[in-house]
Amino acid sequence: MSDKTTRGNFFEDFSLGQEIVHATPRTLGEGDVSLYTALYGTRFAVHSSDMFAMALGYEGAPVDNMLAFHVVFGKTVADISLNAVANLGYAAGHFGVPVYAGDTLRATSRIIGLKENSNGKTGVVYVHSVGLNQRDETVLDYCRWVMVNKRDPAAPAPETVIPDLPACVADEDFILPEGLQMAAFDTLLSGSPMLWDDYKVGEKIDHVDAMTIEESDHMIATRLYQNTAKVHFNQHSEKDGRFGRRIVYGGHVISLARSLSFNGLANAFSIVAINAGSHVAPTFAGDTIYAWSEVTGKSEIAGRDDLGALRLRTLASKDQSCSAFPDKGKDGTYAPSIVLDFDYTVLMPRMV
Amino acid sequence: MSDKTTRGNFFEDFSLGQEIVHATPRTLGEGDVSLYTALYGTRFAVHSSDMFAMALGYEGAPVDNMLAFHVVFGKTVADISLNAVANLGYAAGHFGVPVYAGDTLRATSRIIGLKENSNGKTGVVYVHSVGLNQRDETVLDYCRWVMVNKRDPAAPAPETVIPDLPACVADEDFILPEGLQMAAFDTLLSGSPMLWDDYKVGEKIDHVDAMTIEESDHMIATRLYQNTAKVHFNQHSEKDGRFGRRIVYGGHVISLARSLSFNGLANAFSIVAINAGSHVAPTFAGDTIYAWSEVTGKSEIAGRDDLGALRLRTLASKDQSCSAFPDKGKDGTYAPSIVLDFDYTVLMPRMV
Amino acid sequence: MSDKTTRGNFFEDFSLGQEIVHATPRTLGEGDVSLYTALYGTRFAVHSSDMFAMALGYEGAPVDNMLAFHVVFGKTVADISLNAVANLGYAAGHFGVPVYAGDTLRATSRIIGLKENSNGKTGVVYVHSVGLNQRDETVLDYCRWVMVNKRDPAAPAPETVIPDLPACVADEDFILPEGLQMAAFDTLLSGSPMLWDDYKVGEKIDHVDAMTIEESDHMIATRLYQNTAKVHFNQHSEKDGRFGRRIVYGGHVISLARSLSFNGLANAFSIVAINAGSHVAPTFAGDTIYAWSEVTGKSEIAGRDDLGALRLRTLASKDQSCSAFPDKGKDGTYAPSIVLDFDYTVLMPRMV
Repeated sequence: MSDKTTRGNFFEDFSLGQEIVHATPRTLGEGDVSLYTALYGTRFAVHSSDMFAMALGYEGAPVDNMLAFHVVFGKTVADISLNAVANLGYAAGHFGVPVYAGDTLRATSRIIGLKENSNGKTGVVYVHSVGLNQRDETVLDYCRWVMVNKRDPAAPAPETVIPDLPACVADEDFILPEGLQMAAFDTLLSGSPMLWDDYKVGEKIDHVDAMTIEESDHMIATRLYQNTAKVHFNQHSEKDGRFGRRIVYGGHVISLARSLSFNGLANAFSIVAINAGSHVAPTFAGDTIYAWSEVTGKSEIAGRDDLGALRLRTLASKDQSCSAFPDKGKDGTYAPSIVLDFDYTVLMPRMV
Repeated sequence: MSDKTTRGNFFEDFSLGQEIVHATPRTLGEGDVSLYTALYGTRFAVHSSDMFAMALGYEGAPVDNMLAFHVVFGKTVADISLNAVANLGYAAGHFGVPVYAGDTLRATSRIIGLKENSNGKTGVVYVHSVGLNQRDETVLDYCRWVMVNKRDPAAPAPETVIPDLPACVADEDFILPEGLQMAAFDTLLSGSPMLWDDYKVGEKIDHVDAMTIEESDHMIATRLYQNTAKVHFNQHSEKDGRFGRRIVYGGHVISLARSLSFNGLANAFSIVAINAGSHVAPTFAGDTIYAWSEVTGKSEIAGRDDLGALRLRTLASKDQSCSAFPDKGKDGTYAPSIVLDFDYTVLMPRMV
Repeated sequence: MSDKTTRGNFFEDFSLGQEIVHATPRTLGEGDVSLYTALYGTRFAVHSSDMFAMALGYEGAPVDNMLAFHVVFGKTVADISLNAVANLGYAAGHFGVPVYAGDTLRATSRIIGLKENSNGKTGVVYVHSVGLNQRDETVLDYCRWVMVNKRDPAAPAPETVIPDLPACVADEDFILPEGLQMAAFDTLLSGSPMLWDDYKVGEKIDHVDAMTIEESDHMIATRLYQNTAKVHFNQHSEKDGRFGRRIVYGGHVISLARSLSFNGLANAFSIVAINAGSHVAPTFAGDTIYAWSEVTGKSEIAGRDDLGALRLRTLASKDQSCSAFPDKGKDGTYAPSIVLDFDYTVLMPRMV
């Protein structure tokens, strides 16, 4: 093998406290915004209209939170998860300053935990990743943990360190855009009269709509994010792989579910936190994604009477409507159609 | 069903004179322009080149008329046609001020007619929709009528009101961009020496070229327009639907036909009016679209000797070449390959 | 056939010295840049980040050399190769001033050679094409030769003129962007520590990664370039054609191979020359493209100790890994998986 190419890091290549500068900074442009709309059909007004966003105090329409997430995540793949067996979870995700077309994003990561699996063939890598803009402001940071192959099963196991990750981002850690104000939030233009006050903890919402995924759709998305994980792209090798076909990037399903959630959560105009997330089962081209959400928490924002936070679980289901709210059973087993269980917190205007 | 979600309006939800503000204003950007090119391969110079357009008096390359149309139309779907059985027709469509990248479009509609069908299960809704930019200037307006399901067949029928719609937009209603002038129209760069003077009423033009539609193509387009009609996106439900598969958004076929018409109408640089239009038959992924046009009218523009108007019928045909001009028969029945019959008026430079 | 449409030029329509102004100037925008990323997943930092590019002296991130190439090439198709049987070769390709989002490109061509084939049915057309920006600066020029059908086999053969084309662009003809300097070239951000000094003539690099092509992918790309060659788009006619299906635009494969070459050539930040190129076999949707490169030359740049040139051959292989470097045999026959043999020269920073 050439010394010029990389096949990515294996488990034994990581060390606790290791800092990684990821390659390929990326200037987001109007084209990325349009492609995001074209890939998911998202309709949240704040990301769709400069006028709507500026009336709330933004400089213009900020790019969708998940677009920023995917671009930052994509940069980490070549170093962190090229040899991953599975993306196990997310925690402690905070969105920072808004991202606008014209901003240049880059990413760094720090290894915060390592645990070799008992089979000696794989290990779990815990990583804290940070996305920064051209002014070195944090646009988002999050932790994730992935199961990564060892290159050499005989390589010695590192000391096991499992980081202490919160089950949920604390309210006081929410970062609100400077100057944000809700007085001009127009619910005719946003598509729903339902405000923070209208939602109850425990409420379940079937998002009704659904979207079928084609191979081109998920590959165009994943290439846009410069995510190079080969399982998404190479049918020639995947035909002999675990599933016999390409696997859809898990983040593509998150974005589809978030976009579908517009029907029921149209005023959830910004994501402030990713609390947890699990890609329960793989998704493939041809699958049709439905989604439903449960309101799992409500909190006021200190010093603000014009907006509040809703904690949500959004579940994505393939080839089955969510009218019966397919879920995880008491034994921890998910209904067979579930592919995603995503726990996050959104901002929503309040009645005044 | 959750009180947070919508399944769209049914026939009995509409009332005569009702005004609807549609959700999700949309800032069009350079990305939308590029995607439009990538989806249809359109080659009209005025939409492709800032330099070409500015030489004619535009501020820059205006976005394609049909892109503006689809974005405005898309906004109306959630309120007007989510429960539509069929999109029956268009009339009185005028294009107003040009749309440029950076403009923010929004849409409003007024119900101008209602007629319950004799079966008591459906009714026809006539609607006048207006697209506005961020300066409240009209970028286009048009009437359409759709057959919409009743939620409850027992709901009483409204008084029948059928609006008086013109067969054709009158010449004096054409809106020309301010400052438009043809002196610098370069027919080498536009791709054809054929000017307004060269076309004859009754002339038929086979546009020669053709384009096969893939599922990703029409879904990317329809999502770009934030058109949420589920028949375009959900294979899981459509496999048990009327056609067993997803239906291509009718506007996608209009744009394909307009793009194909470049070969024969390269100097038809702007659409000023939509006179009428009929989606004769559904289109599906895998279909190959051909097109031909008939010149049905020519008119001078008052006070202008440098440009004139051509009224056109462009017909799209699937899986059959248009070299024999497949058409509507004397009995009103269309040739089996025809999917679109679109009646519109374009501007073209004149010999000077 | 209508006098308004074109079916393209045939061999007897070309004459030596003929100058052609191609239609449809094109303003490249941020959307084109994003689509290029979304189509190929390219990760070269200089095209991805305004910040990275500006640190090297560019005005912003220049568009990928091959995007500029495809746009210029696309313009020539309607006049040169609509009736081409095969695209036979390229030579003497120079990239000129960088292209930025906002630039408007147009193209002209000159017929520099003609040779009728002995069968009397086809001939070879040699053409020199130039891409210009809105300031009439050359952004690229190249020669190509294509085999074109005769309309009428009885048409007399022109005098045979075969131009004298160089096997390779000379070092002194490389055009460097003004103000280019490598001091700030950050190899952490670019993705590889390997510099010009690290590469040896004769070195072979398997680029490891691969990409499966879908119909939507190559059609979206080819429409973006406004390339109208019908073999890429019309399944209805191609099902009865030479291969029974649509053929992928050869340039799409060049861009895929260049994008895959990032893994091994991450610091090859700019293409300065296209020396030669051969589309060895057709590519179809469903094919998975792998690539490998051979370093065939190294040269210093006069007056510069901070960057050098590498001449490369990049070969693309379908449905077969390049770990064994599938190549052309001594008898001139290519390994059966090879679809592209592309000879070009790149710039790379040097150790200082």
